[in-house]
This record gives sequence, C-alpha cells and structure tokens, in this order.
Amino acid sequence: MNSSPHASPDNGPAVTRAEFDALFERVRSWGRWSPEEADRGAWNLVTPGHARRAAALVRTGTTVPMGLPWNTVSGPDNGRPALHYMSDLGDVEAPEPSCHKDFIAADYHGKGVSHLDALSHIAYRGRLFDGRTARDVVDAGGARFGAVSALGPLVTKGVLLDLPAVLGTDWLEPGQAVHAGDVLTAEKALGVSIGHGDAVLLRSGHFRRRAALGAWNPDTASAGFHVDAMPLLAEREIALLGADGDSDVRPSPVAGLHSPVHALAITAMGVPLLDNLDLEKLSGACAQAGRYEFLLVVTPLNIPGGTGSPVNPVAVL
Amino acid sequence: MNSSPHASPDNGPAVTRAEFDALFERVRSWGRWSPEEADRGAWNLVTPGHARRAAALVRTGTTVPMGLPWNTVSGPDNGRPALHYMSDLGDVEAPEPSCHKDFIAADYHGKGVSHLDALSHIAYRGRLFDGRTARDVVDAGGARFGAVSALGPLVTKGVLLDLPAVLGTDWLEPGQAVHAGDVLTAEKALGVSIGHGDAVLLRSGHFRRRAALGAWNPDTASAGFHVDAMPLLAEREIALLGADGDSDVRPSPVAGLHSPVHALAITAMGVPLLDNLDLEKLSGACAQAGRYEFLLVVTPLNIPGGTGSPVNPVAVL
Amino acid sequence: MNSSPHASPDNGPAVTRAEFDALFERVRSWGRWSPEEADRGAWNLVTPGHARRAAALVRTGTTVPMGLPWNTVSGPDNGRPALHYMSDLGDVEAPEPSCHKDFIAADYHGKGVSHLDALSHIAYRGRLFDGRTARDVVDAGGARFGAVSALGPLVTKGVLLDLPAVLGTDWLEPGQAVHAGDVLTAEKALGVSIGHGDAVLLRSGHFRRRAALGAWNPDTASAGFHVDAMPLLAEREIALLGADGDSDVRPSPVAGLHSPVHALAITAMGVPLLDNLDLEKLSGACAQAGRYEFLLVVTPLNIPGGTGSPVNPVAVL
Amino acid sequence: MNSSPHASPDNGPAVTRAEFDALFERVRSWGRWSPEEADRGAWNLVTPGHARRAAALVRTGTTVPMGLPWNTVSGPDNGRPALHYMSDLGDVEAPEPSCHKDFIAADYHGKGVSHLDALSHIAYRGRLFDGRTARDVVDAGGARFGAVSALGPLVTKGVLLDLPAVLGTDWLEPGQAVHAGDVLTAEKALGVSIGHGDAVLLRSGHFRRRAALGAWNPDTASAGFHVDAMPLLAEREIALLGADGDSDVRPSPVAGLHSPVHALAITAMGVPLLDNLDLEKLSGACAQAGRYEFLLVVTPLNIPGGTGSPVNPVAVL
Repeated sequence: MNSSPHASPDNGPAVTRAEFDALFERVRSWGRWSPEEADRGAWNLVTPGHARRAAALVRTGTTVPMGLPWNTVSGPDNGRPALHYMSDLGDVEAPEPSCHKDFIAADYHGKGVSHLDALSHIAYRGRLFDGRTARDVVDAGGARFGAVSALGPLVTKGVLLDLPAVLGTDWLEPGQAVHAGDVLTAEKALGVSIGHGDAVLLRSGHFRRRAALGAWNPDTASAGFHVDAMPLLAEREIALLGADGDSDVRPSPVAGLHSPVHALAITAMGVPLLDNLDLEKLSGACAQAGRYEFLLVVTPLNIPGGTGSPVNPVAVL
Repeated sequence: MNSSPHASPDNGPAVTRAEFDALFERVRSWGRWSPEEADRGAWNLVTPGHARRAAALVRTGTTVPMGLPWNTVSGPDNGRPALHYMSDLGDVEAPEPSCHKDFIAADYHGKGVSHLDALSHIAYRGRLFDGRTARDVVDAGGARFGAVSALGPLVTKGVLLDLPAVLGTDWLEPGQAVHAGDVLTAEKALGVSIGHGDAVLLRSGHFRRRAALGAWNPDTASAGFHVDAMPLLAEREIALLGADGDSDVRPSPVAGLHSPVHALAITAMGVPLLDNLDLEKLSGACAQAGRYEFLLVVTPLNIPGGTGSPVNPVAVL
Repeated sequence: MNSSPHASPDNGPAVTRAEFDALFERVRSWGRWSPEEADRGAWNLVTPGHARRAAALVRTGTTVPMGLPWNTVSGPDNGRPALHYMSDLGDVEAPEPSCHKDFIAADYHGKGVSHLDALSHIAYRGRLFDGRTARDVVDAGGARFGAVSALGPLVTKGVLLDLPAVLGTDWLEPGQAVHAGDVLTAEKALGVSIGHGDAVLLRSGHFRRRAALGAWNPDTASAGFHVDAMPLLAEREIALLGADGDSDVRPSPVAGLHSPVHALAITAMGVPLLDNLDLEKLSGACAQAGRYEFLLVVTPLNIPGGTGSPVNPVAVL
Repeated sequence: MNSSPHASPDNGPAVTRAEFDALFERVRSWGRWSPEEADRGAWNLVTPGHARRAAALVRTGTTVPMGLPWNTVSGPDNGRPALHYMSDLGDVEAPEPSCHKDFIAADYHGKGVSHLDALSHIAYRGRLFDGRTARDVVDAGGARFGAVSALGPLVTKGVLLDLPAVLGTDWLEPGQAVHAGDVLTAEKALGVSIGHGDAVLLRSGHFRRRAALGAWNPDTASAGFHVDAMPLLAEREIALLGADGDSDVRPSPVAGLHSPVHALAITAMGVPLLDNLDLEKLSGACAQAGRYEFLLVVTPLNIPGGTGSPVNPVAVL
C-alpha cells in the first residue's frame, strides 16, 4: 500500500492473464476434500475445535452485526434494489390478534446487500471449485454443487484487518489495492495472527466514506485486495474472506478479468466471500476493546441450490 | 400434558376471552423499558454478560443449524411458497470469471419458512408491545416501532425443551398442548434451568412426524404451548421463544383468538418468536452430548421496517 | 370425439414417438419466413387486411374478456400462485392526492394464469421454431429468438370452437381428446369456417366444471386436442390457438411427450398458444348472438426476452 | 401553450388550493352511476355502440402497440425497475418438449412501465371517486372499490393529440403545460373531434426526446396537462385519458398537490389514466394515414383488488 493514502490510489501492478493463471494454479486446492465434502470447500477446515476456541475468545460479550440495511432505493451502488412490501396490515387475516406481515425479495449479488457467496457463485474457464464443470451442475433449477445449503453456518475466529486504523486515515481511496505486505503490516499493527480456519474481514472504510461523500459505483472504483495478496491467505489456510467492498480492488489489475480475487478465493481456494459488510461499528468496537479478533458467526439461509445468501454476520468480542 | 401421549391430543382446558385478558395483564411488561429501548422488548434483558456466559457454555464446538430448506413448492403447510430464480447462469455478465446469481423472495410469515417474529408482527386489541397503537406505527411503508432492524442479533443461552425426549415418544401429536407443568418436568428431566435472558426452544417432533407421515396443515392442528404456560416463562424472564411449530397449540383453546401465545409472548411480554425451526438435528446433538443448553446465535436480516426475518439460527454445543 | 360424452373420457389413440415425429415433419413450417420475421411465426400470416376484415365482423360491439382473475392462492391447479402486494396505501408518498399502489408478480406459465406462449417457450429435440438451437438463443438473460416482444399485438378473426355447445353437454370430461373430425363437426354446427390467419379458441367447459365440482390438477387430466387434429389446423393456416385448458389433451397420448400439441403448434408450426382462458362468458355471448366468430384482440406485455405474457384477450362481437 | 415552443417551458398559471377545489367540484361526477356501476366510473359511458362505431373507424388495419419495453434496469426514470427472471431453461421439467419459462414482476405505478390507473389508485382528501372513503375500501388485501378487475377491457375511439405534430416541433419541453386552448387547436389542426366515451392520448414527444437526449426524472419536469384543460375534457365526457408522460405537467402548478390532474381525472371525473405510453410509432402511423383517430383497445390484466395494471394498448387504424 502506498505510504501516502492521499496520493492517487493505485490498483497495480498490472497482471497478465498468464500470470493470473499461474497464480490460480499456485493457490488451487482442488481434490483436497472428498467429492461429498467438496461443496463446502475451505469450510471443511473449520472443525468443532475451531468453534470452541473461537467461543473462548469472547471477553466482554459485546455483539456487533455487520449487515447493511435492506435497501429498496435504487442508486449508484444499488442498481437492483431489494424489495419490501407489507402483505398484511392487520386487515387480511382473522381479527385477533392482528398480524402484520411482509414480503421480502432480493437479487442479492451486487453491491447493495450484505451477502455470502457460496462456491457455486463463480466459475473460471467454465470450472467451479474442485474442477466441476459449471454447465453440468448449475442450471435454472439452481446449483447442484457448491450450493449455500451445503455450507451451513460458520462459527470460527474472525480477524478484522482494519486498514484505515493501521494507516491512521479515514478510509482507503476507491481503487487502492491491498497487498500481502499490507496484510503483514496490519497483523503486526493490530496484534492479530491469521491462521488455519480463520475468517478474514478487510475494512477499507467504504461505508465511512459513503456516509461522508455519498454513494458511488463500486464497480468503477473500490479498494480491495490485489491478487498478489492471495498466496499469503492461501498459505494461512483461511476459511472465509469478507470485506466492506467485495474483496476485489477495482478497476481490476488483471487483463480481461473483472473479479480476479473472486476467482482465486472461491474457485481456486474454495473460500466463500462475504460482500458489502458494514464494518464501521466493528471497527469502533475493536478499537475500544483493543482487540481485532473475535468469535464470528455467519448463518446463511438454508437455500438448496442457492449461490449464496443475504446475511447479517455477527462478531462477539 | 396427558401422561399418555397415545391418547387423543388435548389442547385444553378451554379459556374464555376474559380469562385470557387477565392473563395478558398478568404477563404484560409494558413500560419496563424506555421508549427508545422498547422496540427490542425482552432482548433488552440480554446483556453482553449473557453473551459471555453463553459462549462459556461451549464444550465440543459442534454447530447445529435450525433453518428449514427454502421451500418453493406449495403444499398443505406451504400455501405461499418461497421463490428462487437464477438471475445469471454465467451468461448475463462479462465472461470471466463467470457468475451464477439468484433471486430469492418470501412472504415468510406462515408455516413454510423458519423465521423470527419481531415485536411489530402482532397487535392485540389494536396495540403493539408497550401499548403502541398499531395503526399509528405500521403502514405500507413498514413498521416504525418494533421493526426487526431494531432487534439486531441475539447471542444468549438456548435451552431445548425436547418434549418427545422427555416422554420417550417420537413426537407430540398435533393438537397437544404443553403446559407449565410440562415445562417444569422437562427442566428436571433434561437437567436444564430456564433463566433470565434465555432463549427457550420447544421441540414437539413436528418435522420427525412430517418426515414419517407427510405434511399437514399446522393451522388446523399443531402441538404447542397452552396459554397457561406463559406466566411461568414470564416469571423466568426469557428473551426469546421458539418452536418447531409456531409456539401456539392449535386449535387455539382461547375463544375467538387464533394465536393467543403470539399475543402473550410478543405483545404482552415483548418476547420475539422463532417459528418453524427444524429441531431434529439439535435434538440428536443434545441427546448425544447429554446437554440441552448451548450457545444460541440468531442473526435476523437487517430490514428497516420489517416485521421479522427469515433466519437460520445456530446452536453451538 | 366419443359420441357419448358420458362414457369414460378417451385421450387416444396412442401415438408412437416415430408417428409423432412424422406428424411434426408434416406440419413444420420452418424456413417459411425470413430470419428477421421468423420470431413472429404464424403471426406473419396476419396482415392489416386481416385486422380490417376482423373489425368488419363487429355487429353488436359487445366486448368479452377472457382473462382469469389473478390468483394468489395455491391449489391443485395453482402450484405457483401469483403475487399481489400493496406497495402504497396512501401512507408512503406525499400526502395529496394520496396514492394506492401495488406490486404484481407471476411465474405465469402453468395452470393458474391466462397467458400467451411465445415461440421461445417450447423446444423439441433442442430446437425452437425455425430450427433455432434453443441453447444458443435462450439463457438466463431471456430469449434472443422468439421473444414475446417480437410478437406485438394480434388483431384478427377469432373462432370459438364451443364443443360442449355442439354436443349439448356441460363440459368435456378431463382426459377427452378433440380430433380433426370434431373440429369439422363444430365448424358445421356453429356456422364458422376456420381460415388463414384466424385465431382458434377451444372451449372444453373447463371453468364451468371447476365452478361446479372444484379444482383439479389439469396436468393429470384435461380435455384438449389430440395431435391428430393438428394437420387440419396447419392446412387452414391458423395464426393462434387457445383454450380453456392448454390445448393439449392430458394424459398425453404420445409416448414420452408431456405436451405434444405444444411442440406441434409452437415449435413446428410457429403458432403461439393461449392457455387457461376463461371462455364461459364468451360461450354465453356467442350463444346469445348466434355467432361464433368475432374480432379478437390479444395484447401481450412488451417483455424483451420474455417467453410469453399474462394476457386478458378480448372478443368484440 | 406558448406560441414559441423554444421559449422556456411554462407550467403555469399557478393555481391555489381553493381554486383547485373549485375545479374539482366543477368536474366532479360523483353519484352519476349506481353504486354497483361506480367502480367503472367513466367507462360506464362506453357502450357496445361505442365499440361498434370504433371498429367502423378501421381503414387500413394497421395495428400499433404503445407499451414500453419491460425495463429491468434502474435509471433516472426507473427507480423501481421491473423484474424478469427465467424460471426454466429446459432444465427444470420433464425433458420433451423442453420448456422455457419466466417470472415477471413490477411495482408498476411510477415512470418505467406503461400502465393503466384504476379508480382506486388516487384519493383526494381521503375520498376515492364517487365519494368512497379510501380507508374503508383499500387495505393490504387490495381495493374493494375501484379495482382494475371491475374495469375490464376498453374498446372505443381513440384520439391522438399529437402536440409536437401540431406545433411542428420534435417534442414539448419538460415542464410545458397543455391548456384547453391547445386541445382545441389540436382538434382543429388534426381533424379530430373529442366526444362522449372517447379515449384521449396526449403526445408530448417524451420518448423521442429521451431517445435523443437521454433519460431524465419526469417527476421533476414533464410536459402534460394544466388543470385548466380538465373542464373541457369533462364536458366532452371522455372515458380515458393517456399520455407519454402521466398526463400531469410537472412541476405541478397547484400549490401543495403533486398530481392534480390525477385527482381531477381519476377521483373527480372517474376517468382512468394510461401512463408512460410510447406514442412515437402511433404518431408516425397517424401522420402517414393522415388520421388521428382510430379503434383503441386496452386490456388490463384481471387483478382483483388491483389499483391498475401494466398494459400494452393497441390502436388499429
């Protein structure tokens, strides 16, 4: 990361397609699990022992949710707004007690909804994680491999890489890439250690910037990981990656690929992603506690064939 | 509960409307919290200390989800099926990596979706919890009091009242009422103690019966609490009540009221409900662990104005 | 048709797959129109002259709609109920004047919604009408060939084949096949002549039976055309086929094909279908007028990429 | 209308609320029809004779649809985009023939969907047409008075008030008001006469301007009727009013009322509105035919309780 966050943001260095493919091979963990287990990818790393040790991290019991408000208003970062309609206002069903009911809907992949990407979400060169041919296992009926229903809940240690806190800035500028060196710097500065089965959450300060300056289109410019950070995360054997953006720096530094970190994490490494998290409250809570690791619980909806789920992850400090 | 579960199920004794109203007054906790806090009702009872103590209950780290599969097929217990459509099969957006995306929707109150009822869900005699006039605070724009977005996540001790395990039966017959005495018996038999800020989950074996005998309409007949169990739960100051049905025994024993337990829990006591949980795996896990209490995490979606949320609660044993 | 409508309904004779394929070849009109026109199939037959002559059929000016009520309640013939929610009850937007608004939704193919099938709806052996490879032109983004938006409105002569009126019965029993001979008999009895560019509507009395006896699953048993009626309709060069069922007799008489008339009409002949029309009022109006032909107007929604549209066709007598 | 269309558009003169209320009284036709008929308002004016005479207007038989493409992309004039998802790509149901199916949805009131407003859509001072109290007859279950299902189809004479054709301009500038005098001028220039039971369609050239200059927010500025044009249309006893905008000039010239023409047409006069019509093709067809009146057919979906319907009206010249 540029030592001067006020300089023009830098998404580079540029990466060729051949270099990307070499990186893909390097971090690829296909064949690591049995065919029955492979839908869960890196969540297979998380054992009951991880959940137990994560629970043991709880000190104060402060709970911090990360889900953005369900956003039904279109805007630069919400091109497919979620829906919310009242289906009963106490006037539809039997009179007592009266019921208020509602209908919700979302085409949740995109920038407006906090959500989990399951392993069926991304294919590279026609292949899903573990080498499954996407066309064979995903159709209008949903995903028969890598569905979110195969993942179930995740209970593990979460680590907040709070980059603005490390750098003493309000936020990373959109377009700023986060590299392996930045991860190592952050670990040191924040007193955390990313390890086997952990969930890593990258805060760029996206929603602090949005609150201050207004919404923009994150597909045009977002802070996020450069692909060169992924081998480090693969070596550490993380289970989950999340961010207040969608983990990819944009514009993409890789020629011809719009979401290269998605391909490396989900397709090569089998690591689901959490996109569009509101990490502002968590940043404050971690700063106050002086700790950037915590019990993290993610409970996707049980959608057979689903490629992900809206979620509201919670940290317990 | 009838000592012989094989006898015809008994939803009684019958309760008059006046008796119900007296019960409502008895368990009513309106005015207990400040107007700013009142939307959260009994979740105000749950402090960081509760989360910390709940985390300390974790022994094995086994995680057990309770969310039913998203059910898009109509049936006797699914009159308003959920929706799931693929919005991208790798053929809509830019080519690499290719993306699979989906759209989900649900009018989730009902019998088909595991969901949380927020305090805006139920009004009795025109009033929501804390005495708010429903007509003033809920309209087509959603709920301005008692919205699910006010609740946030819940992290507390969960207790499974596994009635079939207590009775040595496969399930309670639909229509069978659970009384205060049954709760006390279950506490003793299962070695649990329901206390301040706890989440109580009632297992009737609904989904075991459904798997064995097929679906039926739970509005016609379900096992669940008789209203006479509610004063005990109010005294214990529980924060959350859940079930594999919707907590109410049906047919309702109260003249003219279709969901009297809903009115007592949500409207009088400020206790949100969890409906339609799959508690079969949790029953097995508790039996195996020999323990019926655990860390419970419920993370509703952050829907401003929402009357509840689909959820996938998780127990960590 | 069986001379005795009270006998057990007869969907035969049975047809082998090879016989069906020969029939498909016989009625196939691929290549008849230019590639630019082919999306519209048999609607290319309908010229402004047809609309003019159809308008000249108007005598009394009586208008008769055929659209079923939007059905939001699941049932044996409505497995995927339509949705209807109020999005504003005068309480969401600026106060005066106040607005009431609603949201509608439907997965309209099926048995519950009156709808038009565009040419992209049905493929046989992987091919759409005009020989287009379905996989090449239909994906999650919609249909690039045979979309309903290519059809536009239809204004032409409509002919009601009111079989129960011909036979003096209340309705055809579900499972009863209608053959070429029945069409000829009906033409004579009703004083109509099916010709080039006409729309043919088959009344079986489905909704009269449903009103009398209750709903059933039409996929199990419906009155409709036997495939042996299709060469006659192809010779007559009809533009549109519709019914109070979905035109196919069910069970299908063709081995291994669930909707053979769909394949012949849509895929071979390029004739769109109108499914699930309420023809009861039209039957009464035609009987009263003593005429079974009329100006027919069908105005599908302009949905680019859509495989059809909910419609409310209107006859003007 | 300003004689110089190139001058700054003029939405005036300004109208006070008291003047508006007087106008409302002047055009009000409450009590004109029986309570059973009142749901249909001015459509009661249209008899079979009107349909017969309208059919007799057909000369060439050219058919021209007016429905905008179903727009799933958010933008300045499409804040609540319609939805379109494929529910079957030949991969969900039985194999032969294969079926392509789709799901459509829309919160169609707004600026993105061509639609009909039924009489339940607009209330003024709490009253719907015929004086019905809105709160009594419209709730989350839909409208029990003034529903679109009560309207049925409309078959009558349509008149295109093609203002840009009259003025020799490409379009009216957004914000330009159309007055009674402009209507009279247009009648004379276009050789039409607006009469009892007619449908009047106002073309401002909205979609020609949008094609040339891009989308804008029509709530901020649209060409449309000034309220002072309404008494003339009331005297003529029109049945339907439509436009390529939503009939109201915006900004509204009436103090405190955002849609005064909606209130006068729908609530006072019982005249449904057609909003967001694409009148560009119709303008060309009328110019070519040298005639601005035609058979108009509008077939709203049969939605019980609905406040309107997406439509694709068709003119037959």
